[in-house]
Amino acid sequence: MIVDIHGHYTTAPQSLWDWRKQQAAGKKPGELKITDDQIRESLEGAQLKLQRERGTDVTFFSPRASTMEHHVGTPEISLEWTRLSNDLIHRCCALYPKNFVPICQLPQSPGVEPKQSISELRRCVNELGFVGLNLNPDPSGGNWKDPPLTDRWWYPIYEAMVELDVPAMVHVSSSCNPNFHATGAHYINADTTAFMQFLTSDLFKDFPTLRFVIPHGGGAVPYHWGRYRGLAQDMKRPPLKELLLKNVFFDTCVYHQAGIDLMLRVIPVENILFASEMVGAVRGIDPESGHHYDDTRRYIEFAAISPADRRKIFQGNARRVYPRWNPAP
Amino acid sequence: MIVDIHGHYTTAPQSLWDWRKQQAAGKKPGELKITDDQIRESLEGAQLKLQRERGTDVTFFSPRASTMEHHVGTPEISLEWTRLSNDLIHRCCALYPKNFVPICQLPQSPGVEPKQSISELRRCVNELGFVGLNLNPDPSGGNWKDPPLTDRWWYPIYEAMVELDVPAMVHVSSSCNPNFHATGAHYINADTTAFMQFLTSDLFKDFPTLRFVIPHGGGAVPYHWGRYRGLAQDMKRPPLKELLLKNVFFDTCVYHQAGIDLMLRVIPVENILFASEMVGAVRGIDPESGHHYDDTRRYIEFAAISPADRRKIFQGNARRVYPRWNPAP
Repeated sequence: MIVDIHGHYTTAPQSLWDWRKQQAAGKKPGELKITDDQIRESLEGAQLKLQRERGTDVTFFSPRASTMEHHVGTPEISLEWTRLSNDLIHRCCALYPKNFVPICQLPQSPGVEPKQSISELRRCVNELGFVGLNLNPDPSGGNWKDPPLTDRWWYPIYEAMVELDVPAMVHVSSSCNPNFHATGAHYINADTTAFMQFLTSDLFKDFPTLRFVIPHGGGAVPYHWGRYRGLAQDMKRPPLKELLLKNVFFDTCVYHQAGIDLMLRVIPVENILFASEMVGAVRGIDPESGHHYDDTRRYIEFAAISPADRRKIFQGNARRVYPRWNPAP
Repeated sequence: MIVDIHGHYTTAPQSLWDWRKQQAAGKKPGELKITDDQIRESLEGAQLKLQRERGTDVTFFSPRASTMEHHVGTPEISLEWTRLSNDLIHRCCALYPKNFVPICQLPQSPGVEPKQSISELRRCVNELGFVGLNLNPDPSGGNWKDPPLTDRWWYPIYEAMVELDVPAMVHVSSSCNPNFHATGAHYINADTTAFMQFLTSDLFKDFPTLRFVIPHGGGAVPYHWGRYRGLAQDMKRPPLKELLLKNVFFDTCVYHQAGIDLMLRVIPVENILFASEMVGAVRGIDPESGHHYDDTRRYIEFAAISPADRRKIFQGNARRVYPRWNPAP
């Protein structure tokens, strides 16, 4: 079994985005009407087709990241949009329970305490069977105005995560800062930023079982692994393995063989979870390989690792990090 | 000959930092008194010792990046501090003309047009023999309030760079945003951010001979080279080689063998310039190798490349990118 832990519902029916556009403009968009057939259609030609073509089995599925847009509107608007988005994910997973496993977004807003997100998290996990969440470290959308993830500001949501035994993927949304291209800069920067926040804090002393997945291959972190080992050492911090690798994991959304090979060379295999982010940031075919850039299964298959390690990356680690997901092998 | 294109005067005498502290506090610190012997002492046991030990010959030498602090005080304060800092670099290079080549900082300030920096750039290049500059893409120090590097806001300084035929290293200073650790997040994020700005713009159509060095191995860029090739392709931009590799270069400040090997695998050798940033961000000895993390010469020596390519990285490319530096081979 191959489980892709990072997929977003980027292909949702247009009526969803129309609804959101109205809502964000301060209008009352009324009830969103999307039929089961419309959902099927939106998935059959996209995520399900790619699963079949690439030979992957399950996708951990969450609302589109770029449209979480926590910086838009009031906390009430964020909550309404979040519940709607999570409910739609729930319907996708109910229609295709073998193919999709639900991951929620949270109703965050800039300057609003993360504890306000706990009830939606509980609803998703306890009532709808979600197994993880996306946590936005910068609800301001590129202005980075809230405290770092290691600040006590965030502790209530961590207490809930620990109690519910669900991990968070650290995932920003779109950028309203013209300096940061969303998928080319803001996403990657946020990954790097979060890792360095964890490195400089004692967060995992306070929460020994708290777990984060840093997406997009961990931003710049594996490429600069020597820098991070050295920075920790200069600061008299414990070695990274001891300091945070029981709590911090990386996905494989790195879109070329050389990048994946580097990650496998420096990051312990126990900390790497298979993912592609399809249908996502990069949709084209790489002329150098003749395959889709985001067909990351190929890179893992071609990497010089043992079958046992490949199995950990494809499913074993996901079972450990997301214990609420626990199907037969 | 081995030229290290990225070194900062991090070891300057304490009186410099005391002077700056007073100036930043709004006091009148009076004349800075540093003797030639104090300069010699500050370099002999540090950069010069490391050059000898590591077998490198020349360092392109600029003021400490973290203390450029363009976000501190008025434009007048920034100008006074910048001139003082550049003059001190000039003295270092005059004392050790074989070992150091001067690179200037600019008197930038948040919200102040970059054209205000041109006269100091001209002074450094025309009067003091500087061969390049450090350009801060975020003078606000982690709040990213000025326009992207590709905005016309920056064009006057680019016109001067083209006229003077000097390249800029894109280099931020310290971060006053608690989300961003300076050397572990802000530096690397800025590198990634600048590259993506270049990728999405036609800057190099407007300035075909403008040249930037992206330090710290290009931030996250080589690790995500497939992502960047794919993003450019999805946006119908030209291939990266054509779009920006005549104008954008990467240094080798990547502190482990695996990272350097990745860079050499995906980035054309003509775009890679040797650098270590010593004495800089990471000062310790890597227990895995028994050598300093920032002894980057070793990684280049051990990499599987030809002697001709190694020579390009060690000096050939620097001669092309920094044509004002042109000593006998």
